[in-house]
Amino acid sequence: MPTTRSKIDIIYQPIQSELGQVDQSLRNLGGSESQHIKHLLGYLFDRGGKGLRPALTLLSSKLFNNKVNHNAVTMATAVELLHIATLVHDDTIDDSSIRRGKQTISKRWDSNIAILVGDYVFATSATIVCTTGNLRVVHRFSETIMELSSGQLMEYLKSHDPTPNREEYLTRIYLKTASLFRTALETGALLSEAPESALKHLVDYGYNLGMAFQIVDDILDVEATEKEMGKSVGNDLLQGVLTLPTIIFLEENPNDDSIAKFFGSKGNPEHLKQIISRIQSSDIIERCYSEAQRYCYKAKTSLRNFPKSDALTSLEKLVEFVMERRR
Amino acid sequence: MPTTRSKIDIIYQPIQSELGQVDQSLRNLGGSESQHIKHLLGYLFDRGGKGLRPALTLLSSKLFNNKVNHNAVTMATAVELLHIATLVHDDTIDDSSIRRGKQTISKRWDSNIAILVGDYVFATSATIVCTTGNLRVVHRFSETIMELSSGQLMEYLKSHDPTPNREEYLTRIYLKTASLFRTALETGALLSEAPESALKHLVDYGYNLGMAFQIVDDILDVEATEKEMGKSVGNDLLQGVLTLPTIIFLEENPNDDSIAKFFGSKGNPEHLKQIISRIQSSDIIERCYSEAQRYCYKAKTSLRNFPKSDALTSLEKLVEFVMERRR
Repeated sequence: MPTTRSKIDIIYQPIQSELGQVDQSLRNLGGSESQHIKHLLGYLFDRGGKGLRPALTLLSSKLFNNKVNHNAVTMATAVELLHIATLVHDDTIDDSSIRRGKQTISKRWDSNIAILVGDYVFATSATIVCTTGNLRVVHRFSETIMELSSGQLMEYLKSHDPTPNREEYLTRIYLKTASLFRTALETGALLSEAPESALKHLVDYGYNLGMAFQIVDDILDVEATEKEMGKSVGNDLLQGVLTLPTIIFLEENPNDDSIAKFFGSKGNPEHLKQIISRIQSSDIIERCYSEAQRYCYKAKTSLRNFPKSDALTSLEKLVEFVMERRR
Repeated sequence: MPTTRSKIDIIYQPIQSELGQVDQSLRNLGGSESQHIKHLLGYLFDRGGKGLRPALTLLSSKLFNNKVNHNAVTMATAVELLHIATLVHDDTIDDSSIRRGKQTISKRWDSNIAILVGDYVFATSATIVCTTGNLRVVHRFSETIMELSSGQLMEYLKSHDPTPNREEYLTRIYLKTASLFRTALETGALLSEAPESALKHLVDYGYNLGMAFQIVDDILDVEATEKEMGKSVGNDLLQGVLTLPTIIFLEENPNDDSIAKFFGSKGNPEHLKQIISRIQSSDIIERCYSEAQRYCYKAKTSLRNFPKSDALTSLEKLVEFVMERRR
């Protein structure tokens, strides 16, 4: 059975050389900056990552004329930069120690450096997008930065509120995750001058894939053991954040106050274990997977009118890949 | 003798109504966001301020056809937003308590909220600029965000280094201050379709005005008493930052280790007082003012080929205003 890494390599095969260019562009950034800043950027960009978001831009562009538009390579670089900038600030807020196998910027240096490096990378991403010369793309990209930060802000402001609110959850995961998935697809297509109808289908695909991706992420946080995730389990609850599994748990147990108590206390690890274990032993996880599956189905459906191609096959396989992240 | 406030009101007179529109736009922001986010933005934008940067954009636009282009009003709003976003992150990094007479976001809420609100405001400014439909303006604006953050990053990374470096200082104050002054002028002119030669003069004006402005700011930090500044004196040294007065002090006293000691220690307030008092009793402050005056002279010279107009008079008077911020 192929490993996760080799599976994704097969999916990325049609855009392998362009992904290499994106990687190279990232490594070349900050060339005109001082040694200190170059060193920081080098540290930040010399990290592995799934490269999922830039791959989406490249595959989307390649759907048209079976060729990745050269501006789509620039765009894919900007998309990855934006993702990295978001991670730098998120890790600072969550006080995380490790990202992509290396110390986070806020741990390796300090949170002030992390704020400023994040700002610099945000601005770099927006500047790079301008070189595509496509104002519609530039506008959508700026809007996406707004959506990402408003999603994070919403999550932080609502944290430690034990009232389940599914609608608010769906808005929040659109803003913090699906928005950039959508933009990755949308801009790749726009730069390949896709017709509006095709564009709409790719926007739908991106939205639905992003929603499924985040739901699976939220499931993994309560499902996996620490060893499997490479990070602590129940991290969302520790941050005071309700996600689909805990929202369903609260919907089904309206009089249960264990989460409210956990949010109200200093976060007793024993209580956390008990909540997680009650979720694991119920059918909640299966129901969350069904919800993710529904988004995946919609994502696949959005692709059905495109003519067969390598890029299309990869987009189809990515939908399965998102679901296969489960144990 | 007119007060500072009435002086600036006279200077802003030709663009009074447009400045009112900028203020209104700021108050209307975040309309589609949740109550929580709206409340935060309301707190942030309901604060006085000199409005210097948006005024520069409006005056620059009005130099051409004696009319402020409607896109320049949008641009002026974005310029002020960008300035506000920068202040939110800077205050978080400097751990400042008060800004424009109100508690900073990081003190009123916390530093995580401040990071996210700053990001949101950065992104909002960039999104608003896109609505001007002018890609050159959008590109320059994104570059400016990069310059601002790279200036702050440089300042932070070099902090507590007691080696005087005038060249590095000038680069740093261009990046963190003069860059946005320049962009405010440049974009106002671009949106009024100014000829390239006029554009170049306004870029020069903005650069020189911004340099003078920051040098005066740096002088005030060592010159004024706490009462006059409304903030603590010697704040730059407290943050470990060398500015022109302390750079000249170190150039003249190469064997003096009082600043190095101060940077190396926990920051004894008695030592700080002694350093400040030695600077105040020397001719260093006068020499710094001469340096600022040189930039002001260049700023005024850049305006000499423009035909007489109300907007031109205001730009000329702003140069004097920057110098009159001295005691």
